[in-house]
Amino acid sequence: MVVKESEVCGGGLEWRINFPDGTSKILVPHHHTISKTRFCRILHAFFVEGLFSKIYGFFREAWRLGMDDPKKFFHCFKVGIALSLVSLFYYMRPLYQGVGGNAMWAVLTVVVVFEYTVGATLCKCLNKATATFLAGALGIGVHWIGSHFGEKLQPIFLQGSVFVLAAAATFTRFMPSVKARFDYGVLIFILTFSLVSVSGFRVGKLFEFASHRLSTIAIGTSICILTSILFCPVWAGEELHNLIQTNMEKLADSLDECVAEYFRKDARSEASNKISVGYRCVLNSRATEESLANFARWEPAHGGFNFGHPWKEYRKVGASLRSCAYHIEVLNGSINAGTKAPDFLKKHFSKFCMKLSSSSSAVLKELVFVTHTMTRSAKIDIIVEEMRSAVEELQIVLKSLITQPINASTNINIGNEESDASNTSMSLIEIAPLVTLSSLLIEIAARTEDIAKAVNELAN
Amino acid sequence: MVVKESEVCGGGLEWRINFPDGTSKILVPHHHTISKTRFCRILHAFFVEGLFSKIYGFFREAWRLGMDDPKKFFHCFKVGIALSLVSLFYYMRPLYQGVGGNAMWAVLTVVVVFEYTVGATLCKCLNKATATFLAGALGIGVHWIGSHFGEKLQPIFLQGSVFVLAAAATFTRFMPSVKARFDYGVLIFILTFSLVSVSGFRVGKLFEFASHRLSTIAIGTSICILTSILFCPVWAGEELHNLIQTNMEKLADSLDECVAEYFRKDARSEASNKISVGYRCVLNSRATEESLANFARWEPAHGGFNFGHPWKEYRKVGASLRSCAYHIEVLNGSINAGTKAPDFLKKHFSKFCMKLSSSSSAVLKELVFVTHTMTRSAKIDIIVEEMRSAVEELQIVLKSLITQPINASTNINIGNEESDASNTSMSLIEIAPLVTLSSLLIEIAARTEDIAKAVNELAN
Repeated sequence: MVVKESEVCGGGLEWRINFPDGTSKILVPHHHTISKTRFCRILHAFFVEGLFSKIYGFFREAWRLGMDDPKKFFHCFKVGIALSLVSLFYYMRPLYQGVGGNAMWAVLTVVVVFEYTVGATLCKCLNKATATFLAGALGIGVHWIGSHFGEKLQPIFLQGSVFVLAAAATFTRFMPSVKARFDYGVLIFILTFSLVSVSGFRVGKLFEFASHRLSTIAIGTSICILTSILFCPVWAGEELHNLIQTNMEKLADSLDECVAEYFRKDARSEASNKISVGYRCVLNSRATEESLANFARWEPAHGGFNFGHPWKEYRKVGASLRSCAYHIEVLNGSINAGTKAPDFLKKHFSKFCMKLSSSSSAVLKELVFVTHTMTRSAKIDIIVEEMRSAVEELQIVLKSLITQPINASTNINIGNEESDASNTSMSLIEIAPLVTLSSLLIEIAARTEDIAKAVNELAN
Repeated sequence: MVVKESEVCGGGLEWRINFPDGTSKILVPHHHTISKTRFCRILHAFFVEGLFSKIYGFFREAWRLGMDDPKKFFHCFKVGIALSLVSLFYYMRPLYQGVGGNAMWAVLTVVVVFEYTVGATLCKCLNKATATFLAGALGIGVHWIGSHFGEKLQPIFLQGSVFVLAAAATFTRFMPSVKARFDYGVLIFILTFSLVSVSGFRVGKLFEFASHRLSTIAIGTSICILTSILFCPVWAGEELHNLIQTNMEKLADSLDECVAEYFRKDARSEASNKISVGYRCVLNSRATEESLANFARWEPAHGGFNFGHPWKEYRKVGASLRSCAYHIEVLNGSINAGTKAPDFLKKHFSKFCMKLSSSSSAVLKELVFVTHTMTRSAKIDIIVEEMRSAVEELQIVLKSLITQPINASTNINIGNEESDASNTSMSLIEIAPLVTLSSLLIEIAARTEDIAKAVNELAN
């Protein structure tokens, strides 16, 4: 198929397409329409395609998210179910007659309190119930005291008490110990106290108002708790347990892949690249671990976990995993740095470095097994011992390389001068990457032992 | 002073204390009283002292927190002021006649929406207003459609629409892009939609209900916005700006202190220990940075920052700071590890390592100055150049140390055999710490350049 530009009788230019089978087709120019269609196309590109691709991207991401973790789909269904249940208080006459317009508070409670994990839901429910009760009682008390002050002073007293209590309660939200566990409770305390003591000025039956609020909150929280525990529960404890396991696995894989990559000659593949940066999510998992550990404390016994399971220990394991991940991050950086060690030395080191890294990752993988089965492993001591001997072997290799030090008093000798003397001698800068790699690996082995200790404490 | 156990005439045992001056004192046993007082003491220790020390500790921590950052005290006052303002809608008759019992929603809005930074408050206010409006309109629409279905089908249709919309909206909260900016909005959307469409089944004047809710929310949000902007505003942007600066300063100090400590002979002092672990808060500041950067986008122009200030760039600077902090963490670990390099070599290296570390930290400190004044610094290029030449000098020192490699084909030679031949030669393991330190310092210098680049981009 050839497109030809040919002069035609009319004196204008003509574009003709000659097809292989001998036929041809003339391309008709349409100058006037171009500007219009281009304008349309730009409009189309901006609005339709841009919007369409954004919406498409949004849905694709949503689908990927849900497929990665179908529990998220279930969670959405659970929210829908809880809301449907609570809305029955409006639709069924006998139920509506019981609570009346206050059913609104139950709906509000369900929407605000329902969380992804059972622990978080329980934490919020208990916080909400306790805080509402306390603040309600305090609000009624303050209101009762205020009623003795006379009509003029009462608003001032009420407003003063709201100011002082709200300010004090807000301040406690800054404190880490309160923030971690009772943040929501303090918020609800301020809310209820303000509502009860302020609106009490106008609402006649204050006690009824407070008790209605309490009973609707009780309805809302019990619907939330039942739905979140009965339908495919997501336990914060189990999530934390799995997170720690996944993180350990990722660390082990990253370590293996990073070291193997350094000693391999071919270029990085896409897949290996992905594995070798798996440790990165360990670096950023601190906040998730802390909140899960906090929520897990509220959960009743489930699966293999009793109430009072040592969730704090998981945070220690997480901290030592992160400490190990920092070293792998540096290792990964130094592997990708420019300087290259001589090949024969690399070959010599490779055996020992690979052995150490694979024994470290074997320890990590065994620890994954230990945490998974929640039993002490007989093998773990042997594997740790193997790792220690791999460390020693690497240290012996390092010992076997002899350095001629320069005298501290002399000036710096440039390496090249000396290297003429002995053909095989190398300057330290050439082997620096290998030395750094080795000492990082030795450090990583030490961190792995720390992780093993932390997991052992957890097992006890 | 001797305590003697002596037989006395009564046949019982007697404890006698003989003082050096010849006097003596008999210890009277009081078996019966001990158990009582001990019991009281335990009770006292458990309840009074334990409780007292806990309360005391709580208040001391609160005081320390407030003194560290008096803005937190101001924030509490602001919450109190906002609540007092909104409660005027109850206390002042003309205002109360305007909104009636719906003033409750305004109080609720103030409590829930008022946040520490202006950005967070604005973000929540805008989210709340938009979501309430959208959900209210949608709820009324759904209710209108439902009213055509007849009395039996209407509740089913309404419940179905709540189920579907709540589930879909809940799912979007899992998506990072929505979670970062619109999480609160989606929550309010679900809340308002459920309230309007469900309670619409019973409430006669649905339109009035929705418009009252909107107007009270408008009152609440405007009180929040005004209070948070007019009284000692805490800008998220400024907080982020300061956080990045403090982090840079801490990194510079830690780096200086760590390296100086390694080459110093005396033990770690308490103060230096504190400085050298300052980098740790950089490791954990990611979540804070991200939320501040998100909130800063909502803020109007303030101080030296315009609307549309490149807050995203701060996250890049933060990321490169963290990358540098990982290296300092490893450096700190390797410095505290057991192996020690020979003294004379340490002395030789100290000059170059200290020079490199101090020039790196000088770059960081200059970058603090650059971010502080938000102007390009003429000096920065010179200092970076100095750092580069310090890197080169250290590399030359590394080059000057010559290694006799073992042949790759031969077995490992144990270092000691060779060291007999030349008295001053050392095995590689002895200088490994110094080599690692040097390569870490070189890496840190490279990261510092990355930080400088990121800050420069920010300056542009």
